[in-house]
Amino acid sequence: MLFHVEMEVRLPHDMPAEKADALKKTERERAHELQASGAWRHLWRVAGRYANVSVFDVSGAEELHQILSTLPLFPFMAISVTPLCRHPSSIREDDR
Amino acid sequence: MLFHVEMEVRLPHDMPAEKADALKKTERERAHELQASGAWRHLWRVAGRYANVSVFDVSGAEELHQILSTLPLFPFMAISVTPLCRHPSSIREDDR
Amino acid sequence: MLFHVEMEVRLPHDMPAEKADALKKTERERAHELQASGAWRHLWRVAGRYANVSVFDVSGAEELHQILSTLPLFPFMAISVTPLCRHPSSIREDDR
Amino acid sequence: MLFHVEMEVRLPHDMPAEKADALKKTERERAHELQASGAWRHLWRVAGRYANVSVFDVSGAEELHQILSTLPLFPFMAISVTPLCRHPSSIREDDR
Amino acid sequence: MLFHVEMEVRLPHDMPAEKADALKKTERERAHELQASGAWRHLWRVAGRYANVSVFDVSGAEELHQILSTLPLFPFMAISVTPLCRHPSSIREDDR
Amino acid sequence: MLFHVEMEVRLPHDMPAEKADALKKTERERAHELQASGAWRHLWRVAGRYANVSVFDVSGAEELHQILSTLPLFPFMAISVTPLCRHPSSIREDDR
Amino acid sequence: MLFHVEMEVRLPHDMPAEKADALKKTERERAHELQASGAWRHLWRVAGRYANVSVFDVSGAEELHQILSTLPLFPFMAISVTPLCRHPSSIREDDR
Amino acid sequence: MLFHVEMEVRLPHDMPAEKADALKKTERERAHELQASGAWRHLWRVAGRYANVSVFDVSGAEELHQILSTLPLFPFMAISVTPLCRHPSSIREDDR
Amino acid sequence: MLFHVEMEVRLPHDMPAEKADALKKTERERAHELQASGAWRHLWRVAGRYANVSVFDVSGAEELHQILSTLPLFPFMAISVTPLCRHPSSIREDDR
Amino acid sequence: MLFHVEMEVRLPHDMPAEKADALKKTERERAHELQASGAWRHLWRVAGRYANVSVFDVSGAEELHQILSTLPLFPFMAISVTPLCRHPSSIREDDR
Repeated sequence: MLFHVEMEVRLPHDMPAEKADALKKTERERAHELQASGAWRHLWRVAGRYANVSVFDVSGAEELHQILSTLPLFPFMAISVTPLCRHPSSIREDDR
Repeated sequence: MLFHVEMEVRLPHDMPAEKADALKKTERERAHELQASGAWRHLWRVAGRYANVSVFDVSGAEELHQILSTLPLFPFMAISVTPLCRHPSSIREDDR
Repeated sequence: MLFHVEMEVRLPHDMPAEKADALKKTERERAHELQASGAWRHLWRVAGRYANVSVFDVSGAEELHQILSTLPLFPFMAISVTPLCRHPSSIREDDR
Repeated sequence: MLFHVEMEVRLPHDMPAEKADALKKTERERAHELQASGAWRHLWRVAGRYANVSVFDVSGAEELHQILSTLPLFPFMAISVTPLCRHPSSIREDDR
Repeated sequence: MLFHVEMEVRLPHDMPAEKADALKKTERERAHELQASGAWRHLWRVAGRYANVSVFDVSGAEELHQILSTLPLFPFMAISVTPLCRHPSSIREDDR
Repeated sequence: MLFHVEMEVRLPHDMPAEKADALKKTERERAHELQASGAWRHLWRVAGRYANVSVFDVSGAEELHQILSTLPLFPFMAISVTPLCRHPSSIREDDR
Repeated sequence: MLFHVEMEVRLPHDMPAEKADALKKTERERAHELQASGAWRHLWRVAGRYANVSVFDVSGAEELHQILSTLPLFPFMAISVTPLCRHPSSIREDDR
Repeated sequence: MLFHVEMEVRLPHDMPAEKADALKKTERERAHELQASGAWRHLWRVAGRYANVSVFDVSGAEELHQILSTLPLFPFMAISVTPLCRHPSSIREDDR
Repeated sequence: MLFHVEMEVRLPHDMPAEKADALKKTERERAHELQASGAWRHLWRVAGRYANVSVFDVSGAEELHQILSTLPLFPFMAISVTPLCRHPSSIREDDR
Repeated sequence: MLFHVEMEVRLPHDMPAEKADALKKTERERAHELQASGAWRHLWRVAGRYANVSVFDVSGAEELHQILSTLPLFPFMAISVTPLCRHPSSIREDDR
């Protein structure tokens, strides 16, 4: 099942640079894993903002929440979730 | 270049059913063509709403506007456009 | 899978009373069927507004959209959908 | 009487982990008690956010406020309350 | 139980004057009855707008909805409802 | 003259408990005085939020501002003011 | 007493030109009278919009509403009212 | 003096095509004149919407309003105006 | 040229009282000077809020920005600017 | 390709003056370079706010993001990006 997810990151200005760097590094590693597994199907940067637009392919809301809520940057992100379904005009096999 | 586009359709309640059906039919045909050509890269239905989330892969804003503004349903849609770029954590070759 | 759905009905003021009554009657019948089948798990009226708060228990976004988009009042409703999941503090067996 | 309540938790980033853990633990215990007593009738997690959607079954606004305002996380939550009533199309006996 | 209710009236511009006058007349009569019975406890005009701020004293959300949804102007009003309770600093006996 | 006033209190999370308690105590005493004098005509708690809905009966905007801006919690409140006038359908003598 | 008032005019597109002209003419005459009497103290056009910013000097909300609600364009205006009072840093005698 | 202006066009769906075409034609001619005279300094299409972003170079708000309010499409546009001034970091001579 | 300006002051809660007092004192002196010079034409307090509504009479956006951005409280204010022009129905000579 | 960009700067009130000055200085130098190279095509100050309206002329969203995300003030700015294209009524050769 597909979910459209927007994430905007807001790091506190007084977070030490090392802590921010460590968070971003583990976030990146986790993103790699989740893309490799197929759960994080698309990941794009929003031009000009510390934000992304993503599409997740998961078994349901439970798995989605488990993934999002354990991202290292989760406490610093504003997240909005929109459930998607196949569009009747779509011609792509896997845009389910 | 990738653009994230959200379209919400609002047909006037007094539009005759035949006109609405004709519009939707030509819209669908146009969507098929644009997906086949690669310009309309992703097309998903937003669950519970007469709306879609799309990703377009075009040469720039000029081509995007040419496409969107000539869609049969364009006069009846609220459209928002967000330019995307490659995310540094993306591992997909073509999520450029 | 559970979805939280808010629906607000906005009938055009110039809709003939018979048409409105017929729509509401078939909407009610459909709501009865969907509740009986278990898909429309909860249905509450929002006090003071022609609106409801509902919880749907469906296989996924596809089934949810199929249900919502075929409701007789769908063309006259503003709908917002929020995917739910089990709360770690819930003690009810079936609030999955 | 039923109330629809949405709660979003915003813990300050500089709250010590032990204090946050203690707050969450007492919050969970209180949620268990209130569900057991029947006052906190439904409790769902909103997918992707540190937030919940709940339905309370209480004697009135007074009891609702007494409950919400004494939750351990109350000072850190944005709360919105919507009074519900029985929907004329509901077929569930106890969705009063 | 007390509810704070804001109502904003939006009559269609093409409603015949006689129909508007008849609606307003029956609305006024209904408002008189409900004030006399004690259910419509306060009724104020918002300066400069075709809107009112009201406080209702009813048995619960069910009675409130029954009252509001049968007002003659209900189909033409945007209504927002806020449940109230006694303020700990109130000194008025009946501001329950 | 009547003013509808909504106040939402937002105390900084790092305010020492004694300071918060002292502020609330003087706020309560001031509220008692202003209710006794007739200036603070109604005071209700908004269910589920650290907020109130009030009606003030004062000589004008000058007196209203003098009262509100000297409340002990004023620096910590978001306040919105709406001027009221007698509703043509009101039957209460003193809902001027 | 001073009130800050913003008015935005929205004439229906299908209003006959003669009716619109007649409304605007009587609106202008009424504006002249109210400025001459001192009640409509300031009247400015908002650049680029069919809207104005005004300051009224009236005895209270009652008189303000009586004036605004009888303006010929009242049914076609979105109006917002803000009560003003003397600013402690003002040096103008009559900016009361 | 420079003003940043955003215009969004909303033609009524029932406007006859000839009337719409005539309006657009005279709008285009007027836009040409105003660009030639230097008053309409920049004019861009917003990608995906029937809207533009413009910069006007006029003697002041009076001239700006005179220009905007006499555009043929003015009754069908939502317009927002932002006054600009020279940016201290600008290196362009004429971005005054 | 006239500009309508709204300013809302938000002092950080942890600003030392002496610093706040000093800022307010120099702000008041600057306001006196600017009113005396004619640039700050009107200055009103918004009832119930630490905010003002003002009208400035300046040579253009450049002078307006120079004035506003050098106010002592500028870093602590949310400011919105609206350009005004003479209203065709105005009868005051100097409401230019 | 042209992008319309609005940037609003929000420096933390407790940032040391030297750090703020250093950031602004390098920001200014970077702005000079980018204007000189042609990428930052227009740069205007929004009157009364610590904000700018800009137009960038870049190869695409990738270059735009590379530029914006490396501005010294990027962590302290709220940025919104709108893709532009040539307006059919434009007569300027280079407003592409």
